[in-house]
Amino acid sequence: MNNASPLILALGLLLAPVCIASAATPSSSAVARQDSLAPVLVTAPQWEQMRQQVRRYPLLAGEAQRAERRVRAMMEAGIDVPAPRDKGGGYTHEQHKRNYQAIHAAGALYRLSGDQAYADFVRDMLLRYADLYPTLGPHPQGRGQIPGRLFWQTLNDSVWLVTAVQGYDAVREAIDPASRERIDTQVFRRMAEFLAGAPENFDKIHNHATWAVAATGMTGYVLRDRSYVDRALMGTQRDGEAGFLKQVDQLFSPDGYYEEGPYYQRYALAPFILFANAIERNDPQRGIFRHRDGVLLKAVDALVQSSYGGYFFPINDAILDKGLDTEELVAGIGIAYAQTGDARLLSIAEQQGRVLLSPEGLRVARALAEGEARPFDYRPQLLRDGPDGTEGGLAILRMGGENGQTLVMKNTKQGMGHGHFDKLNWLFYDNGQRVVTDYGAARFLNIEAKAGGIYLPENSSWARQTIAHNTLVVNEQSHFGGDWKKGQALAPTPLLFDITDDTQIASARMDDAYAGVRFTRTQVLLSHPALGEPVVLDLLRVEGDEPARYDLPLHFNGHIMDVGFEARSAVTTRPLLGKANGYQHVWIDASSEPSADARSLTWLLDGRFYTYRFASTAPSRAMIGESGANDPAFNLRREPMLLQRVDGQASTTFYGVLEPHGRYDGTAETVRGANSRIDRIAHHRGADADVLVLHLDGGKTVALGVADDPAADAAHEVSGDGQQWHWQGGWKRFDTSTGEDVK
Amino acid sequence: MNNASPLILALGLLLAPVCIASAATPSSSAVARQDSLAPVLVTAPQWEQMRQQVRRYPLLAGEAQRAERRVRAMMEAGIDVPAPRDKGGGYTHEQHKRNYQAIHAAGALYRLSGDQAYADFVRDMLLRYADLYPTLGPHPQGRGQIPGRLFWQTLNDSVWLVTAVQGYDAVREAIDPASRERIDTQVFRRMAEFLAGAPENFDKIHNHATWAVAATGMTGYVLRDRSYVDRALMGTQRDGEAGFLKQVDQLFSPDGYYEEGPYYQRYALAPFILFANAIERNDPQRGIFRHRDGVLLKAVDALVQSSYGGYFFPINDAILDKGLDTEELVAGIGIAYAQTGDARLLSIAEQQGRVLLSPEGLRVARALAEGEARPFDYRPQLLRDGPDGTEGGLAILRMGGENGQTLVMKNTKQGMGHGHFDKLNWLFYDNGQRVVTDYGAARFLNIEAKAGGIYLPENSSWARQTIAHNTLVVNEQSHFGGDWKKGQALAPTPLLFDITDDTQIASARMDDAYAGVRFTRTQVLLSHPALGEPVVLDLLRVEGDEPARYDLPLHFNGHIMDVGFEARSAVTTRPLLGKANGYQHVWIDASSEPSADARSLTWLLDGRFYTYRFASTAPSRAMIGESGANDPAFNLRREPMLLQRVDGQASTTFYGVLEPHGRYDGTAETVRGANSRIDRIAHHRGADADVLVLHLDGGKTVALGVADDPAADAAHEVSGDGQQWHWQGGWKRFDTSTGEDVK
Repeated sequence: MNNASPLILALGLLLAPVCIASAATPSSSAVARQDSLAPVLVTAPQWEQMRQQVRRYPLLAGEAQRAERRVRAMMEAGIDVPAPRDKGGGYTHEQHKRNYQAIHAAGALYRLSGDQAYADFVRDMLLRYADLYPTLGPHPQGRGQIPGRLFWQTLNDSVWLVTAVQGYDAVREAIDPASRERIDTQVFRRMAEFLAGAPENFDKIHNHATWAVAATGMTGYVLRDRSYVDRALMGTQRDGEAGFLKQVDQLFSPDGYYEEGPYYQRYALAPFILFANAIERNDPQRGIFRHRDGVLLKAVDALVQSSYGGYFFPINDAILDKGLDTEELVAGIGIAYAQTGDARLLSIAEQQGRVLLSPEGLRVARALAEGEARPFDYRPQLLRDGPDGTEGGLAILRMGGENGQTLVMKNTKQGMGHGHFDKLNWLFYDNGQRVVTDYGAARFLNIEAKAGGIYLPENSSWARQTIAHNTLVVNEQSHFGGDWKKGQALAPTPLLFDITDDTQIASARMDDAYAGVRFTRTQVLLSHPALGEPVVLDLLRVEGDEPARYDLPLHFNGHIMDVGFEARSAVTTRPLLGKANGYQHVWIDASSEPSADARSLTWLLDGRFYTYRFASTAPSRAMIGESGANDPAFNLRREPMLLQRVDGQASTTFYGVLEPHGRYDGTAETVRGANSRIDRIAHHRGADADVLVLHLDGGKTVALGVADDPAADAAHEVSGDGQQWHWQGGWKRFDTSTGEDVK
Repeated sequence: MNNASPLILALGLLLAPVCIASAATPSSSAVARQDSLAPVLVTAPQWEQMRQQVRRYPLLAGEAQRAERRVRAMMEAGIDVPAPRDKGGGYTHEQHKRNYQAIHAAGALYRLSGDQAYADFVRDMLLRYADLYPTLGPHPQGRGQIPGRLFWQTLNDSVWLVTAVQGYDAVREAIDPASRERIDTQVFRRMAEFLAGAPENFDKIHNHATWAVAATGMTGYVLRDRSYVDRALMGTQRDGEAGFLKQVDQLFSPDGYYEEGPYYQRYALAPFILFANAIERNDPQRGIFRHRDGVLLKAVDALVQSSYGGYFFPINDAILDKGLDTEELVAGIGIAYAQTGDARLLSIAEQQGRVLLSPEGLRVARALAEGEARPFDYRPQLLRDGPDGTEGGLAILRMGGENGQTLVMKNTKQGMGHGHFDKLNWLFYDNGQRVVTDYGAARFLNIEAKAGGIYLPENSSWARQTIAHNTLVVNEQSHFGGDWKKGQALAPTPLLFDITDDTQIASARMDDAYAGVRFTRTQVLLSHPALGEPVVLDLLRVEGDEPARYDLPLHFNGHIMDVGFEARSAVTTRPLLGKANGYQHVWIDASSEPSADARSLTWLLDGRFYTYRFASTAPSRAMIGESGANDPAFNLRREPMLLQRVDGQASTTFYGVLEPHGRYDGTAETVRGANSRIDRIAHHRGADADVLVLHLDGGKTVALGVADDPAADAAHEVSGDGQQWHWQGGWKRFDTSTGEDVK
């Protein structure tokens, strides 16, 4: 038997009041004798290495101390395994969550300290679960989806099992046989059977199912029960039509994009990565991390790429404050780094300030302590969607580095039940801020006063509706009539995606979001020496079979500085924008008469001005509104929006430019560049192409030609304002000085 | 002649691309020969010491580098002294601002580098002013107050002079006699005469006048013209009825509070402190920093005390983003530290990250580099108002350190034309956030699109009105009928101010804010082991001669989680709260029927919950509203408010408790303490005293007795709910466990 080394002891004393006892740790000979009990999710030699090095690296030492404080406090408070009763955020919900976290942490602490008290604590708590669990039926608050046992939804039961089984694995050989037998059968087998016994959840291609298969498969490794592992990998029928491998194939695109979007990618990532790590440890011959050209590792990279200022792009149902520091991505970064040794991941780990209390966490903590971190490489890219990469994609344009300009164009497929009706929607970030916004989800996660923390009614009535996004609404209806199953079958068609030094362009076409309506959108991030910052060009061409009402909303963040158009203000009675499909949630503050002239709106956000110039080929009205109507429970945030409306046309083209400019410094009381550097925007249409022209302050112009056909070989010609533009291919940029003719 | 030392040269090279030339610096013998030209605002030996040490301390070296970059850029761009034309934020306004900053910086750089180019730059620019200035009449945008010459208001002309004369002082002996003569007479004398020639500004007891006298007095020292100094110190009549000394006596209270409040105290501080420093240097026998028991230094301390999270309490006309890092307070901290050596000031300088490019800045930078900073001591205190400290005061209660709880009770006098009509108003901070808020000023400083950056019409129609604050409104009128001159004569009467470990209390009475109405308010910051955080108790007793409408608004920051009372929601048409005095700017979202039962409202802010329980002795309605109605130009921020309304009573008592509780952690998806730990609040009235009782979760109670008479010797008795409370003195706290009787 090895005792803790004198160094560790000394460090343990230095780290008082946290004290890791010097009791005996399991010897490798004991492990050898009890092979069916040895830990398998982290091996005994790995634990031993961690035990020797845990105090050496600040980040890991901090994790151990935090875990120790938390577990010690729970040991002192006494075990509490309440009968399930509450929804998310309620007492029993939160207590069962604390319990699985404690089981996980106590298991690790047992291995790191050798203190039997931790193993006993895990045993005693699990024996209480062994008493409780077999008595449970469906959770009293269960609803909609399959109810859980310990929690209101099965999903949380799966998370309980994924987490707790890791702690149990660490202490299983330190528990007396009778208790172990009882815990094996009454807790872990019953839980795994409950999950695997519900194919309507387990066999889905969906993140809830990923948690369920990970829980079952990891339990299978720990209990040495291959049937659980097989069902986890191949589905309840073990035919590969469901289960983990199918999920990896179906839920990620070849670029690692997860069809529900980054918020759920983050959530789904944990079971994918944790279970893959368990598979790699126990079935290394599968080469799970090389599966599909390494798609699981690509998924970690894609998730980090899908963020700005530390927060994920909040497309689809997404809570705005979720970002890189979530525990799921701590696991993702740790495991991906252990697989790849990619030093760029370390800078994300540094930002997270957390590591796994695992061999992977040790590697990250050591590499960070040794100064190996390199900056993460945020880059413009198209993340293709769909298992074959053929169902649209998320276009990310970036200039100016991490806190510069980021344009996100959502040309992805529907993304299942959490998808929003927002084909060809866009978001824009600048100066570290959300400038053109997505509402995200209407939900206060785990806050009991807000419907128990689940999705609020306003998530359906507002957040998912097309009007709550920055894309085309036809006749006040949402895309696909608001039916996600219809949307699931129809993805946008990506057209252009090109990146040059001063021009980044993405475009896509959407057919049949509305019957008989096709719309094509091109978005460009464009820099120019005469402009302070890169600007966004937007060109949205809609062609319909019949005259219709076309609405194009822009949800922006900031305080309005200047309304650059005539509008009737609704200052004492604000009308509603409409009656349904989200329109009932918008108050109108001001609206203009129809006109085809370009208008502008300027707002201020965090010391920077944003001027949006916009127009349409057919006369449009402009309206300014705010969310928050028909919201008796104060569930919505109140946020401003601009709306362009074209009535009674079958086809029209909306175009605009969004320009960040200037700097307001409240401390120094100085203002620079409060005026836009764009004099006007013009649009010209040729036979098969459009040209947008920006007339810049000082006389220069920059024009952008966009052809209907993205093919590289076709020639195009557009003329207007006494000028002609010729080019070959899907797009072309033309820069001119004053008076200079374009050939 | 001394050359720059090799060390300085070497450091200069190391600091490339910033390069300070090695040209000759003025020798002390040259200085002696030209005594009437020697610098007086910073002496030649002081400049010499700075020259030797400027590179030694990072903060000061940074200032020098910044100044050099800025001035070099302006030297390259060429001198630009435009004819005055624009309002604040406009081009000519900002250019004249950049110019005085450049003159100031170039003067210092000349002394630090000995490079004649800086002196020539100052000379050339000032010669341009010598051409322009004599031709100027009133500024074309001048309005209201006395128009300036270079700027739309005289105030900015004064600031020009205060700043530029410091730069001129540094280079004056390096300018040829003819140019010097021309600059002396055509710029500085003319400007000083313009300011001192307008007694309607110069002789006011007001911060605009302080800038004017400082400008004139500092010019007097530099030009060796005693008449300017005398007029600056004693007023245009030189009788001491006006001028700097009178301003010091009249504008600060004995505690260093400035009657307009912290926002203007910050602005006014610079000329007070800069001119005092010039007086100390040139007329040390005056002992200006010891004047009135050191009130100028107390003013610096009081200003820092009047802040939370780095931002000043935004009472009266105040821009919310002004705080400790403003350049005026950089000057204040530097000069105060040079006078006192108080190491607590250094931690503020550290936060500022800036120092003066002056001997005082050198001292601060050196002390910081040597690790001498000590934490600033934020403490509960009453800052008495009025020249004799007898006209009310600002009560500041604090628990839990710098980011803990801070309650500000505004029992000050009116504060002249920038004062708001908000007697006995309160603000509350917690967890680093503004929780109970003050709108501050309706103004976008220097933003041309917003009325040229001046106060907006909504500053009068909303921000100053009583309804925009958290205090009593009678019959929908503002205090003093909205006439600040009436308010100026009437200050609240402070009653209690006591600080103990677990209870901090302040109270005051206001008579004649409304004819025939007296109201008394008591506010308490109270901690208790059964509560997560200290809570605020509020007791507002109003006695009127006639039945009236009594409104008590609460402006809060956060998203409503739970409306704990029945209310009719206005979800499709929001009525206005009223027609005038700010009421026209409020939309009503929900309103209840009258009741005397206590109600509650819970909101969430930055992960913490706030539950406000409130009631009144007479039946009241509760309404929830939002600012932003009748605002066609989008000048207002839209912020939520709660309103209690008692109708048709001559007297009533409002009481409530605000409880911060719990923690929502979005990253970890955990919620703790989402439920209030207070079961209910009760109020009992005796013959001459009130008792508020909090019934805490778990059965304990805490009661607070408050007597009408704050005197320490009177005995009081209140009974209710089968209990009796006896005490002697102005207030008493009673803590009981379950069932225990209060004697």
